[in-house]
Amino acid sequence: MEKYKGLSPAEFFHRNREIAGFSNLARALYQTVRELVENSLDATETHGILPTIDVEIKVDENDSRLITITVADNGIGIPITEVPNVFGRVFYGSKYVIRQTRGVFGLGVKMAVLHAQITTAKPIYVKSSTPDSRVIYEYYIFIDISKNIPHIMKFNVKKKKRRWHGTVVRIVTEGSWILARRKIEEYIRRTALIAPYATISFKAPGTRLHYSRASRKLPEPPKIGKHHPRGVDIEILKTTIRSLENSISLVDFLSTYFEGVGKKSAEDFCKWAGFNPDTPISKLMLSDLERLARKMREYNKWRRPRSLTLSPLGSELLEEGVRNILEPEFVASVTRPPSSYGGHPFIVEAAVAYGGRIPVQNTPLLLRFANRMPLLYDEGVDVSRKVIDSIDWSIYKIKFPAPLAIVTHICSTKIPFKGVGKEAIADVPEVEHEIEIAIRDVARKLRTYLSKLEKMYEIKRREVTIKKYIDEVARALGYIVGNDSKELFRNKLLSLLNEDLRRRSIVRKGEEIGVTAKTASNS
Amino acid sequence: MEKYKGLSPAEFFHRNREIAGFSNLARALYQTVRELVENSLDATETHGILPTIDVEIKVDENDSRLITITVADNGIGIPITEVPNVFGRVFYGSKYVIRQTRGVFGLGVKMAVLHAQITTAKPIYVKSSTPDSRVIYEYYIFIDISKNIPHIMKFNVKKKKRRWHGTVVRIVTEGSWILARRKIEEYIRRTALIAPYATISFKAPGTRLHYSRASRKLPEPPKIGKHHPRGVDIEILKTTIRSLENSISLVDFLSTYFEGVGKKSAEDFCKWAGFNPDTPISKLMLSDLERLARKMREYNKWRRPRSLTLSPLGSELLEEGVRNILEPEFVASVTRPPSSYGGHPFIVEAAVAYGGRIPVQNTPLLLRFANRMPLLYDEGVDVSRKVIDSIDWSIYKIKFPAPLAIVTHICSTKIPFKGVGKEAIADVPEVEHEIEIAIRDVARKLRTYLSKLEKMYEIKRREVTIKKYIDEVARALGYIVGNDSKELFRNKLLSLLNEDLRRRSIVRKGEEIGVTAKTASNS
Repeated sequence: MEKYKGLSPAEFFHRNREIAGFSNLARALYQTVRELVENSLDATETHGILPTIDVEIKVDENDSRLITITVADNGIGIPITEVPNVFGRVFYGSKYVIRQTRGVFGLGVKMAVLHAQITTAKPIYVKSSTPDSRVIYEYYIFIDISKNIPHIMKFNVKKKKRRWHGTVVRIVTEGSWILARRKIEEYIRRTALIAPYATISFKAPGTRLHYSRASRKLPEPPKIGKHHPRGVDIEILKTTIRSLENSISLVDFLSTYFEGVGKKSAEDFCKWAGFNPDTPISKLMLSDLERLARKMREYNKWRRPRSLTLSPLGSELLEEGVRNILEPEFVASVTRPPSSYGGHPFIVEAAVAYGGRIPVQNTPLLLRFANRMPLLYDEGVDVSRKVIDSIDWSIYKIKFPAPLAIVTHICSTKIPFKGVGKEAIADVPEVEHEIEIAIRDVARKLRTYLSKLEKMYEIKRREVTIKKYIDEVARALGYIVGNDSKELFRNKLLSLLNEDLRRRSIVRKGEEIGVTAKTASNS
Repeated sequence: MEKYKGLSPAEFFHRNREIAGFSNLARALYQTVRELVENSLDATETHGILPTIDVEIKVDENDSRLITITVADNGIGIPITEVPNVFGRVFYGSKYVIRQTRGVFGLGVKMAVLHAQITTAKPIYVKSSTPDSRVIYEYYIFIDISKNIPHIMKFNVKKKKRRWHGTVVRIVTEGSWILARRKIEEYIRRTALIAPYATISFKAPGTRLHYSRASRKLPEPPKIGKHHPRGVDIEILKTTIRSLENSISLVDFLSTYFEGVGKKSAEDFCKWAGFNPDTPISKLMLSDLERLARKMREYNKWRRPRSLTLSPLGSELLEEGVRNILEPEFVASVTRPPSSYGGHPFIVEAAVAYGGRIPVQNTPLLLRFANRMPLLYDEGVDVSRKVIDSIDWSIYKIKFPAPLAIVTHICSTKIPFKGVGKEAIADVPEVEHEIEIAIRDVARKLRTYLSKLEKMYEIKRREVTIKKYIDEVARALGYIVGNDSKELFRNKLLSLLNEDLRRRSIVRKGEEIGVTAKTASNS
């Protein structure tokens, strides 16, 4: 006889730590640092605060697997009553809203706490204060795994002396600094590059990185938004209806609770879909809701979602980042207009870089970012890699091996990650499509550049070839006409050649023939 | 001010369907079929029943995205009271025990139900009966997503007329048969090959596959086991202690609740670790438990975990499978002894295949299996791929491009999957190590084969070269000695050559020189 039972979410993730990226001691340390840094960035820039983040890693002198990680930020802090759940309850958080943030699962930092407590039996230490609070509070927290609730070991409150706000988290965990070092350094470097408005310092055995903010200009923080009608499902409709206190008409429902839907467009949609706009939504049956959700997904006249909830980097910052990392000879970038999948708006940005210090490889070097997080693992199953591998690069005048790099950045209120470790992005058709358009767009710019380069090279070759004979021809013509005219011929021929070359480098491909025909007698 | 809230597990996975493999319509259909087939196999072979499984896919005539999937098995059925939770509650199941099964997360089929109900608003249909039940029951079930509880729409009970037991599940979901077809067919084919004792039929638009069982010999079903001491953590200790009614001594605790630990080895361990074996476990403090867990992990004299909880294929079946799929000219395989990670025993099996119908490629073709499930997606981030890519194949006399295939099969009470979609296996060091040993083992067998082949070729070359001159030499010797001895010389020379060749193909490399020296005057 089989025995059946339920598990708490904490128990589930304790049993399946690999799923959240905690598959070995190197990865566990990397993931812990990453979750804490990303929480700190979310607690600052998302709320209009210029981030100042300190990361410190200490290795125990007697046991090199015992690692203490401290991350401190100047963010908005966590309300005193929320701290225990935020760190001690799986599936609990402030990020279950429609807004671009790095965190999304309400899971990352809890996994770090779980891993720490089951490997070292040490609680997590949290110190925090919100801007409006007059106290600073300190917690030592365990997770009660079988109940999925926080267990507070120790709690202190102190009066605030200076106007500090922010959060300090300290975790003692089992990890391998030696094995994780390269990845963590690379992670910090790329994070600093993608967030040039942040001051980040990193201290660890044998390493000290410090990035002062290069700019005090913070990108416009994302706003909290609504679902886009093209991406609703019946569950979203049901949840939204259930949250209402009074029943309202369908047209009011649509124009109030969905992104970019006005009275007029709600009415147009109802007409198209065969719904009476005045139906009270409380009267809609399950089958009506199913049809409503389906029709909302199919209707192709909704306004594209606005990007208020998103905070893309912008071309300028993206190209600057690429120049800093790769020092290429050519960069081009594009920020696509907003699109959406499953009710979630997203923006794809892409850059192409060529030459310079980019290593010559048989495939394009890929740098992936999602909501300004660098993604360093699991490239092999990422949608960007899939798109890049599907492109015939010879169309864009690339012959491998070549020094070619592609950067992709996806901003969304919900990145379709393949796992809760947040490393690879799934091949959701809408996202894949946008990535392909973006990459092909920058690839075309690269082709234009390479064509110009090719033509320049061709002109140079022509110049060299013709110049070789000019002296000889001038001498021969001079001999026929009279000795003193040799210099005259030489100058005349040279100026003809230069004019021809000049014309070739300006005129377009299609017009060249005419030019060649006109100057045929001279060349 | 930030708002904080909790999510139910069902809400979490509804929001993050990509995590469980439901990232697009093709993948959603593939994943649904897979979860149902694997549940059916677990319900039969794990309980000593020869599986008979019928899979049917129907596509709606008016809307090609509307797919009906029916999977029927002759398994042990699900108890009448458990059906709602098994299909309608995330993190609920019978597979949270230490035993090799395909299912592990208690999540797969619920994700299929979630996807179906939010795309088509149709409940799941389940018909089941256990062997000892006198009735057959039918359920129509939804998941209440915000509460993570099942919601029963309809329920029927019928008297059993014949001795049927098993489960029939029908799901109406949104999917794409055209896009998923190739992968689903491949999945069914490979499943049939890895389970030759199963009868599987598959019916879908334009496709009909039928695999009758080739053998009535079922592999020994896995038993339910205990944690192995090398892989415990403090949480496992705490949970085990909490489940006890009375406190017992440490030595009794160790020898009762852990795999392969007897009284004697428990005492030896206590002595080594500095614990008093008679301490009542209720007296152990948190810091003691932490030290106990650490010492249990570090102690290297535990018995290797037995494989009672596991059910590997065995060399014979594995090689047969490989021959059926790949039709190679050479196969070798190995089943490694049991090992463990994190308290979970596992066995790695590997096979190498060369030549025949294996396509010639620049890297080895990889076929991955885990607990007899074929893994078709996300190879790029699988530990087996990592191991294969790290091996210098020239050591094994492989020069790419080559017709080389590697098969890996990992059996475990808990496969360290990287995601709940169960496609890629994480690089847990213990598992990675065993895979490498297994692959290098079969690769050595391949090298021996290729060396023999090389030598055979060398001998053949030698034979052809020498034979070319025998007639001429015999004629010349005959001319010197007298005409009639030509035939005699020819036969003598041929028999000398044959003797030499025979010797070369038997003797080992090191001995060849002696042979060559001895026969030098003859060649």
